[in-house]
Amino acid sequence: MDPDTWLLLCRTVRFGDTDAAGVMHFQQLLRWCHEAYEESLERFGIAAASVFPTPAAAPAVALPIVHCQADFLRPLVCGDPLAIQLAPQRLDQGTFEVRYSFRSGEVAVARALTRHLAIEAAGRQRCALPDPIQRWLEASALGGGVRPL
Amino acid sequence: MDPDTWLLLCRTVRFGDTDAAGVMHFQQLLRWCHEAYEESLERFGIAAASVFPTPAAAPAVALPIVHCQADFLRPLVCGDPLAIQLAPQRLDQGTFEVRYSFRSGEVAVARALTRHLAIEAAGRQRCALPDPIQRWLEASALGGGVRPL
Amino acid sequence: MDPDTWLLLCRTVRFGDTDAAGVMHFQQLLRWCHEAYEESLERFGIAAASVFPTPAAAPAVALPIVHCQADFLRPLVCGDPLAIQLAPQRLDQGTFEVRYSFRSGEVAVARALTRHLAIEAAGRQRCALPDPIQRWLEASALGGGVRPL
Amino acid sequence: MDPDTWLLLCRTVRFGDTDAAGVMHFQQLLRWCHEAYEESLERFGIAAASVFPTPAAAPAVALPIVHCQADFLRPLVCGDPLAIQLAPQRLDQGTFEVRYSFRSGEVAVARALTRHLAIEAAGRQRCALPDPIQRWLEASALGGGVRPL
Repeated sequence: MDPDTWLLLCRTVRFGDTDAAGVMHFQQLLRWCHEAYEESLERFGIAAASVFPTPAAAPAVALPIVHCQADFLRPLVCGDPLAIQLAPQRLDQGTFEVRYSFRSGEVAVARALTRHLAIEAAGRQRCALPDPIQRWLEASALGGGVRPL
Repeated sequence: MDPDTWLLLCRTVRFGDTDAAGVMHFQQLLRWCHEAYEESLERFGIAAASVFPTPAAAPAVALPIVHCQADFLRPLVCGDPLAIQLAPQRLDQGTFEVRYSFRSGEVAVARALTRHLAIEAAGRQRCALPDPIQRWLEASALGGGVRPL
Repeated sequence: MDPDTWLLLCRTVRFGDTDAAGVMHFQQLLRWCHEAYEESLERFGIAAASVFPTPAAAPAVALPIVHCQADFLRPLVCGDPLAIQLAPQRLDQGTFEVRYSFRSGEVAVARALTRHLAIEAAGRQRCALPDPIQRWLEASALGGGVRPL
Repeated sequence: MDPDTWLLLCRTVRFGDTDAAGVMHFQQLLRWCHEAYEESLERFGIAAASVFPTPAAAPAVALPIVHCQADFLRPLVCGDPLAIQLAPQRLDQGTFEVRYSFRSGEVAVARALTRHLAIEAAGRQRCALPDPIQRWLEASALGGGVRPL
């Protein structure tokens, strides 16, 4: 497992992320959350194609977001560096959530959460979480994923 | 006041709003919320330039979002029509939130919320809500804004 | 045919479309182009699901964009109203392009173009344009679609 | 100068970049172009705040995009790695363009171009390119920026 599975260091606030108030437009944070979730899976060794559909193959189980939320603690401007800490947590056999803590330097700038539900992609009925996601959640529970503040 | 200040009828889910799972990508809903908030202000008679900065003029008070959340109840596909019901509510003299209920036909498909804080644009200190926003919130409290389910 | 098949009147520049320079971020224009293309098809009577994939059904022919371009003539700020004129044109039996002229009031503010290629969705081989798209292009050629400046 | 000023290696196609056809939605490529342009300036040693406005300070000269275009050569799916080669070029004393070549592994997948015009931020009159941008363009002309195919 890549040591940076739960702590992603590489993002910078870009010009297109800002709005006319000069700061990050709130909705961009949710995009970064999903990108960080994908990157964490990838660093854990889970291929994108085993979780997310492509024209070549659709995984049997989909993991749509049923809830999201975010708290904005500080304004972010173009060029600000961001580190994103992830804390994924299993809720029950078919549900998990991911908590995200955003820091810029030493300062906490935002927090967010996405909640995901496992469904059969074909019939959209609830089902159990796929094995690779289970293992990723277990690794997080075993201390890999530091709890955000 | 435009009778449709609190109920916006004109949006359709577009192809670019979807992802490879074939349904609306979660983050788009937050974009629609902000667009609905802007459209509601406009229908109430508040000019965009009096609330949102342009190169020509920046309003003295900014209203950044400090919290947002959304619940996704049904998948949305390209071509689905959407109606958005807004219920803005004053929380205290410097804060308000807007609740959004999304329906497609008769079916509730999503709910969301944005919470806004009034700050002086120059120094980013908390301040009172601007008068036009106060009037918009009062009009909503007087029954104009139907409470969402 | 809806008289407004080629002239779409309803868009407003929104806060989330702008960047920290206070004006529309260039990339948003391409999003509006695709939305206008979808709306034009819809007004012509072509259901979204017959052109764009949904989880329930994928059309046999896909129409991916192989080229796009845009010219930005005037800055656009939050609240600016936009009218979009479309001029779709068949290039050959498997290709068409759509030219878009953006006006705000009487002023030309931007021009854009998307070029689309018909391919079999399954094997991604070139094929003929689907019949509904052919009819939409013929209607445009017969004078419905006013040529942009 | 960072050796990777003209060749950016770190992007991956993410789920939110795709649409219901299962491949990258065309408009995302333009976002990546601008992000690559910003990253190249940063690697060359030009601080974001000296080119892009923040609430604290607006540079005297703005560099709006007056033209963009893109060619899409191959479909891109979620998880595809991308390398972006930049070739910035001065056109005259107040204009430059940046050519972008996108590769996934050894395969050319897309090409794009943005053209930028220097204007005084205050009055929006044409002016000369700022010195740091001039140096970045000269470094590219001296062989740093490999011409894309």
